[in-house]
Amino acid sequence: MRDTAPSKTPIWQAIASALRGDLAEGRYKPGDKLPTESALAERFGVNRHTVRHGISALVDEGLIRTRRGSGAFVAATPTDYPIGKRVRFHENLIAAGRRPDKRVLDIEERAATEGEAAALHIAPGDMICTYHGLSLSDGQPIAVFESLFPLTRLPGISAAFQDNSSVTKALQSQGIADYTRATTRLTAVRASATQALHLNVNEGDPLLKSSGVNVDDAGQPVEYGRTWFAGDRVTLTLEE
Amino acid sequence: MRDTAPSKTPIWQAIASALRGDLAEGRYKPGDKLPTESALAERFGVNRHTVRHGISALVDEGLIRTRRGSGAFVAATPTDYPIGKRVRFHENLIAAGRRPDKRVLDIEERAATEGEAAALHIAPGDMICTYHGLSLSDGQPIAVFESLFPLTRLPGISAAFQDNSSVTKALQSQGIADYTRATTRLTAVRASATQALHLNVNEGDPLLKSSGVNVDDAGQPVEYGRTWFAGDRVTLTLEE
Repeated sequence: MRDTAPSKTPIWQAIASALRGDLAEGRYKPGDKLPTESALAERFGVNRHTVRHGISALVDEGLIRTRRGSGAFVAATPTDYPIGKRVRFHENLIAAGRRPDKRVLDIEERAATEGEAAALHIAPGDMICTYHGLSLSDGQPIAVFESLFPLTRLPGISAAFQDNSSVTKALQSQGIADYTRATTRLTAVRASATQALHLNVNEGDPLLKSSGVNVDDAGQPVEYGRTWFAGDRVTLTLEE
Repeated sequence: MRDTAPSKTPIWQAIASALRGDLAEGRYKPGDKLPTESALAERFGVNRHTVRHGISALVDEGLIRTRRGSGAFVAATPTDYPIGKRVRFHENLIAAGRRPDKRVLDIEERAATEGEAAALHIAPGDMICTYHGLSLSDGQPIAVFESLFPLTRLPGISAAFQDNSSVTKALQSQGIADYTRATTRLTAVRASATQALHLNVNEGDPLLKSSGVNVDDAGQPVEYGRTWFAGDRVTLTLEE
């Protein structure tokens, strides 16, 4: 694989092939930062231009992503995420063979805007609990979300989130034994600067935005949630 | 609304308000190009800087979109597009109160790649018909699509598309009375240069990509379709 090797394969292709092998063997895992161009140039005994050419081939193949000013990273295989009537982040990821994790960004209580109140079937100005968080799959951030809960119906839910990041468990603590998704709306948007920071993507990168209302057994809204999935890390699946 | 009018409202706000009124009255319709800054400056008797300020307020409100080098356009209200077991472009848009239209970009016959063959349950190298097209809602392009049909099962489908752009009718002509969606996969991607050109968006703008396989009554794949929806013009809805 050195540039002195007698071969008709261009050196950059040989480097791409060696890195592809490293990835296949798990030497670098999804989300890992690759060594710098200088380090790779030294390892392969070639110049940085040749290394860059090899890396760009893997970028084209979707195996590696480069991030402005941060270097090259191993691309994660997109997580399959089922959407439908029962939306359970934890269960969904376990079923997909992934390790789910959640990080609470902030929880606060404030008055509902007109649009939020309409979604939750409460009066504008009624108090809600807002839960901002980050969803992770195998340690990689895959989505930021904002969930809104009506405090008129679930007065203790903010406190419940202090003990546990799970929406299902927090709702259970408030007497909601089960809930289902009433509507789901999907579109594609650009990542804002803050979303990009949390998701470790570039500002303006495509995000799949999902919004929906969860209702209890009586059809009453208990959660109005919006989720922004990193387009390159999640595929929403809809099985009939 | 002229700059000589005695009012505490800043002039740019008055201009934003006048343009908002024009939009509400239907003077400019979704997709229409607004007059140039110079023309608006003349109409309102103000300088271009003030016009630009007024327009940027409407951009923030989502009423107007600016396109690099092309000016300002009236933003279309996003089309609600139901996804699920029965995917019928024409019916879906009529139900949403929109006027559907389709433009054939090209139709050709070629051998299936490995991935395409797997999706259609045919052998790699088997011949398929590829149908590239553009979907429009109220005259605005909302999606580009690529549909693949197995010629082994539907030998006359390319000819059927010569008479009619409707997939449903072409499949009927081949003896497929009904079909349903077996799987749907959704993600967000950046618009390629070609897609941007067809959709009249900027290269890199977020697109919602949907891919799925339609099967006949016996569960045999009859179509493998991928659709790229303009993120700002379509909301996919999933009703339970």
